[in-house]
Amino acid sequence: MIIGVVGLGLIGGSLCKAIKRNTDHTVFGFDIDKNINSYALMDGSIDKEISDSNINECDYILISVYPKATVDFLKEKSHLIRKGAVVIDCGGVKRSICENLFNVAENHGFHFIGGHPMAGLHHSGYKYSKADLYKGASMILTPQNTDDIGLLEEVSGFIKSLGFSSVTVTTPQNHDKIIAFTSQLAHVVSNAYVKSPQAKVHKGFSAGSYKDLTRVAKLNENMWSELFLLNKDNLLFEVDCIINSLSEYKEALQNDDAETLKALLKDGSDRKKAIDN
Amino acid sequence: MIIGVVGLGLIGGSLCKAIKRNTDHTVFGFDIDKNINSYALMDGSIDKEISDSNINECDYILISVYPKATVDFLKEKSHLIRKGAVVIDCGGVKRSICENLFNVAENHGFHFIGGHPMAGLHHSGYKYSKADLYKGASMILTPQNTDDIGLLEEVSGFIKSLGFSSVTVTTPQNHDKIIAFTSQLAHVVSNAYVKSPQAKVHKGFSAGSYKDLTRVAKLNENMWSELFLLNKDNLLFEVDCIINSLSEYKEALQNDDAETLKALLKDGSDRKKAIDN
Repeated sequence: MIIGVVGLGLIGGSLCKAIKRNTDHTVFGFDIDKNINSYALMDGSIDKEISDSNINECDYILISVYPKATVDFLKEKSHLIRKGAVVIDCGGVKRSICENLFNVAENHGFHFIGGHPMAGLHHSGYKYSKADLYKGASMILTPQNTDDIGLLEEVSGFIKSLGFSSVTVTTPQNHDKIIAFTSQLAHVVSNAYVKSPQAKVHKGFSAGSYKDLTRVAKLNENMWSELFLLNKDNLLFEVDCIINSLSEYKEALQNDDAETLKALLKDGSDRKKAIDN
Repeated sequence: MIIGVVGLGLIGGSLCKAIKRNTDHTVFGFDIDKNINSYALMDGSIDKEISDSNINECDYILISVYPKATVDFLKEKSHLIRKGAVVIDCGGVKRSICENLFNVAENHGFHFIGGHPMAGLHHSGYKYSKADLYKGASMILTPQNTDDIGLLEEVSGFIKSLGFSSVTVTTPQNHDKIIAFTSQLAHVVSNAYVKSPQAKVHKGFSAGSYKDLTRVAKLNENMWSELFLLNKDNLLFEVDCIINSLSEYKEALQNDDAETLKALLKDGSDRKKAIDN
């Protein structure tokens, strides 16, 4: 098959490399930065640049640019895409993308499926991309119809052929709700954590817990602010939730209330055990 | 030398095993649970049980029980300890312990130094203890006088002989201030994180960020509530600090204020980069 990959950053670059390493498919790629296109051609991660004149040869198109750019790109190119082709995006939010693109795809006779690869690094850009980024990772898919079993099986097979170990199918609504908790909140909390004045002076004092809590504090503010605002309702719910929880510990501390503090800690500890076991 | 280890949990058990593996010292050990004493004798982690009649043979005594129990133990046994002996505790807070014990030590002619090994697991108890727990870790020491260079050099040499890679000397006040940020806050935030209703339903949706943020959510509520309350002022400062930071992101989200959100995220990201580089 011919696979188009639009956007050759960490995610798209790694998709190209994974396809080349794990399959015999041909890869057409494109990045807005011409140097990246040349580089990807040179190192063999793509076979050809995608253009308006060859995009209709693609059986699959994987889009890995920011959410708003994804919508803009596909609306602009929809008339060029082959009927029956499968287009999957890789954005970190799914409602705003799918609401815009399910209809566009339907009107032009191709399939659009929301996608979100559960993998990443705290570095971005083609230079960090690698063929095994998705090895053992999960891919979330949010199709328009979850009852088109034939299509979903074919797409799952393709996804797994790239190295993903599992595919989770859900609705855009459910994706955005859960991802606000597992990923977006983690980035907000980690980013907020390092704002203490103590952050600058802790050399020699930091055990693993500090390192874990702040690993994702270093982030791409342009991408994440777009993702956060496109999932505002869910993320606000989660931020409120943790502020409320933290306020409970605070109150127990202020009151020297050992029993309540112990109960709060035990509750969190029990919840974590219940999730992981 | 003869080294006494009081409290054979994860920390104390690992100290015994590290001493036996890395040095020729004799280890006298004691745990309140008699079964643990028998087990540690049997597996060779200790050579003998500490008792009131032999504690005066110890050149070093390492105490690894909860802070209040540390103070009680040493006050009760102070008259039995050899003059010139060095006693180091391993508690996670230092002011309350040192304030109580510096004078006791001085009055009885032995040295008391506050200690805090920067190592641990999210499991506790002798059965998880291991000889290499401290390999490459840092040990914080809070001595009464930081200008007794001879004593500190001797103690540092002993600590490093157990496998620690570095020793950080500071005041109890500074220790408690920084540890509130690097360790205590991490445990509070992680424990609070899992209280979202989404925590139960995220299977297939969790990338590394969720795992990192919640790794230390599972904790011993008895130990941590004691540590938190003994460091109430510093921990309250840190909890307030992160609640205030989180409220800033919340406000920017509520106002759809992309520029402020971006600025907040960039500030956190820049701080993290500045710390780690």
